[in-house]
Amino acid sequence: MNEKICFKPIGIIHSPFTEISGVPIQPLNAKGIKGTIELNPDFIEGLKDIEGFSHITLIYIFHLTSKFSLQVIPFMDDKPHGIFATRSPSRPNPIGISTVRLISVERNILHIEEVDIIDGTPLLDIKPFYPKFDNRITDKVGWLKGKGNLDGVQSDNRFK
Amino acid sequence: MNEKICFKPIGIIHSPFTEISGVPIQPLNAKGIKGTIELNPDFIEGLKDIEGFSHITLIYIFHLTSKFSLQVIPFMDDKPHGIFATRSPSRPNPIGISTVRLISVERNILHIEEVDIIDGTPLLDIKPFYPKFDNRITDKVGWLKGKGNLDGVQSDNRFK
Repeated sequence: MNEKICFKPIGIIHSPFTEISGVPIQPLNAKGIKGTIELNPDFIEGLKDIEGFSHITLIYIFHLTSKFSLQVIPFMDDKPHGIFATRSPSRPNPIGISTVRLISVERNILHIEEVDIIDGTPLLDIKPFYPKFDNRITDKVGWLKGKGNLDGVQSDNRFK
Repeated sequence: MNEKICFKPIGIIHSPFTEISGVPIQPLNAKGIKGTIELNPDFIEGLKDIEGFSHITLIYIFHLTSKFSLQVIPFMDDKPHGIFATRSPSRPNPIGISTVRLISVERNILHIEEVDIIDGTPLLDIKPFYPKFDNRITDKVGWLKGKGNLDGVQSDNRFK
């Protein structure tokens, strides 16, 4: 459990958000926000058939978060919760996931929408989104129950 | 884009599957399969309130995959596709995601179900699953269209 594993980004995510404060906190709150993925050209062959999917899941690094906290007060509540019960970026391994809309692909550039990610974010992986595998009907959503209204909820600098 | 980032697993996933061949290829195909997460006890505090969620998303390492391919023939098709248009483990960064059912938590042990993950897998992160953020209605599912029938589809050794 103590062995480190190292990854090299496969590309960089570009978006209109140049600082943490003001970034939408979920794709749901980022309708119409456009961005691009600049894939390392070495990996272009890996994009074959990806344009068939309307949605892709991005796995990336919260690269502006320098330390982790095991309990945090997330943007959507005023009480502390365990970091693994939140999506906050200040995690032991600062990895984020977002499912975005794929608009088009030109060589190594993917045009995307519903981008809740800061400009310059290092990308680790891209996976196709397939509702039959990825959607869930859940019984319980814990502290998030009744907290789905994101109107005006944005990132601030608390996890910088 | 060339800077490496290193992670240390936060725990280990245990499951009934001790070899790659025969592992269900998605949680959808792993109904009733039980497993556990053995979290590094240093991170117990980060579990506060997680038991409120019926589903959690695990981010983990495909640790038995030693090399990547940019095009693969996935388990669910007989034609090659770009690696980023598939969920195959032989990715440039061998990172997997699975949403599983959370049954209970005892100290640093999380009991889970619908486990499509091999025993001994290093875990990088746990996130709560929230349908309002995570479910999607999609327009296009590419080569997976009409391929959702997983009856009898299991992993074999092609990506070892």
